[in-house]
Amino acid sequence: MSGPDAPAGLLEALDAYERALAADDLAALDDAFVRSPTTLRGDDRGLLVGHDAISAFRGARGGVASRTLTRVEVRPLADDLALVVAVSTFDAGGSGLQTQLWRRQDGTWRIEAAHVTGRPRAFDTTVWRVLGDPLVAPTGTGPLDGETVAVKDLYAVPGHPVGAGNPTYLRESVPAATAAAAVAALLAAGASIRGIARTDEFAYALTGRNEHHGTPPNGAVPTAVPGGSSSGSASAVRSGTAGIGLGTDTAGSIRVPASYQGLWGLRTTHGLVDRAGLLPLAPSFDTVGWLTRDADTLLRALDASVPDDIARQPVGDPVVLTDLLDAADPATREAFRAAVGPDVPETSLAALGLPGLDELRELLRLVQGAEATAVHGDWIAAHPGALGAVVGGRFAAAAAAPADQVAAARERFPVVRAAIREALHYRVFLAPTVPGPAPALAADAVELERVRTATTAMTALASVGGLPSVSAPVLTVDGAPVGGCLTGGPDTDRALVTAVGRWLPA
Amino acid sequence: MSGPDAPAGLLEALDAYERALAADDLAALDDAFVRSPTTLRGDDRGLLVGHDAISAFRGARGGVASRTLTRVEVRPLADDLALVVAVSTFDAGGSGLQTQLWRRQDGTWRIEAAHVTGRPRAFDTTVWRVLGDPLVAPTGTGPLDGETVAVKDLYAVPGHPVGAGNPTYLRESVPAATAAAAVAALLAAGASIRGIARTDEFAYALTGRNEHHGTPPNGAVPTAVPGGSSSGSASAVRSGTAGIGLGTDTAGSIRVPASYQGLWGLRTTHGLVDRAGLLPLAPSFDTVGWLTRDADTLLRALDASVPDDIARQPVGDPVVLTDLLDAADPATREAFRAAVGPDVPETSLAALGLPGLDELRELLRLVQGAEATAVHGDWIAAHPGALGAVVGGRFAAAAAAPADQVAAARERFPVVRAAIREALHYRVFLAPTVPGPAPALAADAVELERVRTATTAMTALASVGGLPSVSAPVLTVDGAPVGGCLTGGPDTDRALVTAVGRWLPA
Repeated sequence: MSGPDAPAGLLEALDAYERALAADDLAALDDAFVRSPTTLRGDDRGLLVGHDAISAFRGARGGVASRTLTRVEVRPLADDLALVVAVSTFDAGGSGLQTQLWRRQDGTWRIEAAHVTGRPRAFDTTVWRVLGDPLVAPTGTGPLDGETVAVKDLYAVPGHPVGAGNPTYLRESVPAATAAAAVAALLAAGASIRGIARTDEFAYALTGRNEHHGTPPNGAVPTAVPGGSSSGSASAVRSGTAGIGLGTDTAGSIRVPASYQGLWGLRTTHGLVDRAGLLPLAPSFDTVGWLTRDADTLLRALDASVPDDIARQPVGDPVVLTDLLDAADPATREAFRAAVGPDVPETSLAALGLPGLDELRELLRLVQGAEATAVHGDWIAAHPGALGAVVGGRFAAAAAAPADQVAAARERFPVVRAAIREALHYRVFLAPTVPGPAPALAADAVELERVRTATTAMTALASVGGLPSVSAPVLTVDGAPVGGCLTGGPDTDRALVTAVGRWLPA
Repeated sequence: MSGPDAPAGLLEALDAYERALAADDLAALDDAFVRSPTTLRGDDRGLLVGHDAISAFRGARGGVASRTLTRVEVRPLADDLALVVAVSTFDAGGSGLQTQLWRRQDGTWRIEAAHVTGRPRAFDTTVWRVLGDPLVAPTGTGPLDGETVAVKDLYAVPGHPVGAGNPTYLRESVPAATAAAAVAALLAAGASIRGIARTDEFAYALTGRNEHHGTPPNGAVPTAVPGGSSSGSASAVRSGTAGIGLGTDTAGSIRVPASYQGLWGLRTTHGLVDRAGLLPLAPSFDTVGWLTRDADTLLRALDASVPDDIARQPVGDPVVLTDLLDAADPATREAFRAAVGPDVPETSLAALGLPGLDELRELLRLVQGAEATAVHGDWIAAHPGALGAVVGGRFAAAAAAPADQVAAARERFPVVRAAIREALHYRVFLAPTVPGPAPALAADAVELERVRTATTAMTALASVGGLPSVSAPVLTVDGAPVGGCLTGGPDTDRALVTAVGRWLPA
């Protein structure tokens, strides 16, 4: 202890708080903070305002690493008010720092504001698997000079194995001799690879939770999931530790994290960007794409990755697709209506002679499941217990789908794809990207499954159509970002990105 | 802005402070903090107490990344006192957080305490070049199960090139097919490689400053250099982001950072640990060694790296070597005298018939320089401008050494080595490791050169003798760590580490 004498009872309250932290005693920790909507707690993942938010965060965190306060500076500020700044030394090495404003209420000292710097870590292993300065140097110069890339762990990076979000798969994987085509394109345009970013297992989920490696932070909403499966790429870009997140989008895996974290995300036209060196999930839907903090960087990544003369189709007339809007939560609908230009007309899938969202989602589910089983089924069968529960359950359900339903879906799929493409020849669909803001980290499995079903109803259209779809950070719902989404005809990728501001101004 | 109304003038003061930060206006920043020895400023590198320490830190930092305050929470605490918690959003992406206690003095608002969480970074590129979870998995199990290693960027790590602290050298380097012997030994004993750690260029310096990659933090003294050349390995271990720092010691490159950062560091007997796969600097002096936070881990690293039946010589009788003690700063001498057991006798190099410290240092300088020139001279000549100024100057000076002096030193070196070894047959020398605490980051070139000369006078003995030497964190001088050092005869490595507590209790 150093500084003037601490007020009576303050150091005892600090000790009790440290003991409660060590025990992860949630009730005691709740009671140690002033129960007020203005109470503050911040760290490197963001600022929480209000006792409720702080309490919810703590419930999802789990405990803290074992530590001792090795220096405590007390600054009495008034009779019942003091600032405490304490250095903590962790048993496993390294130091942390905490600044706390303590107030005595009815004889009890409680924390009114806290700022925490936790235990040092070499890097955030929920976001990255491997990192370098750079991990891979550029092979040329061009529109991406100076940019850094977070590569989703499905792409071949020279000298490194592909892990696909699964440690067992990683152990059996061998280092790639050459870069995946999409990686090589970025390197040739001047970008360097910063690192290999985490993904949901085999890209077969949309939350960003990985049961082996943890959940990357949502840089926009500290208490929410990051979105997936391009989760690490999205979190890296949001935090500014990479400029471009190279991802994949099969059923929404770029659009969803872009929406959840307030980023730009582009799912490209199916087949537009070469998928050589990319581990597939469901080849009829798999696409290459990118997450960025601004439209300009997104366009440069696109330019670097496709020849000049393609993906240059103009977009058609904008139309709000009411099916997608109706599938969104009420608050999201309201925010979207306020954002979209008043002159944009509406239409519906039925009016266009297209199947409804539920049918599209079902078609996607069955064909994607069959293809995922064809790609990964043998490996999964040979490695019982290797997958986490959620993704393991999804693969199991896919493998168990009735054969007649799968066959019917496979037969119908090209017909529906053609019909959607036809409908988008002279149109671009406007809608929210997903139903609403990112679910809370504390959400249970039932809630997450509800969100997933509602989400894939909205993302299935572009996936089944094999169409480009951009999510842009243009909506705010309950203080959290939600994407505005434009989906266009084949090869309108470039025009879609540039058109966002015209109809959905940020 | 959110919360109750801010007191008059506070937000204006906050704005002015942000503008001063953006301009790196040191005078304005100094004036923004209360001029008191109790003023506080902390971040992830540690806590600074007192206006002077804060001012010195800022002078050495350079500016901060461009940013905007996107959320400001004000909590008025008294008439002239308020807490401000502000979220900053950086132009290059990512958010930071600052908590400040502001006090109005004579009508002017000033900061009395600040806690800063800066811009997110993927990892500390001053400490690491490449990182993984893990970068290389263990190849066996043994005494190092669960340990993580920071490998100095001179050792072959499979799949990665060696960079030697120089970006030009790195670009021309090819990935290693197999691990260096010292790396393989740790992997076989159960450790994983966390990453490749920064080094002074070609290991030819002792400060830890790298003109290409920056200066790793000194985890014990935020305002001081980390020590080198095993700088990244030391900083990683100090911060707890690795358990073992694999380093090299030619002229002090393990002992110096161990002393500066309060770590255990062992320079092994010359030739004891296989140097296959290690880029040499001066083969007659180069040794493998480790930095750890405790003696037990150091012993386990040693056990993993040498066969059971060697490095098991007992140490002889302890003796304080007065030459080394006299070479230390007065405060260090005093701390050492207080720490060393009262029964330990003293002796001097002259009494033992050995050359004095200046002659040993000169011998080391000339032979090391000649060998370094032989190893790297051709590469350096072929790459003009590739080296930083300090290390480049050192190589140039070495190459320019008069041939007759070098020849005489080379001839005398084996004679002196034999004499030192003979003197240590039945003795172990006790002394401070280096003259004093780590020099300040703000130290100028003249001061650093003075410290280097004084330091190599103390480290040369073990280097010229090719002897094991352990630095242990047993002294505190002016609040900073200084190592206590035991130097013994050949193959007393293990006994040296275990003997520290007997004569230099922490």
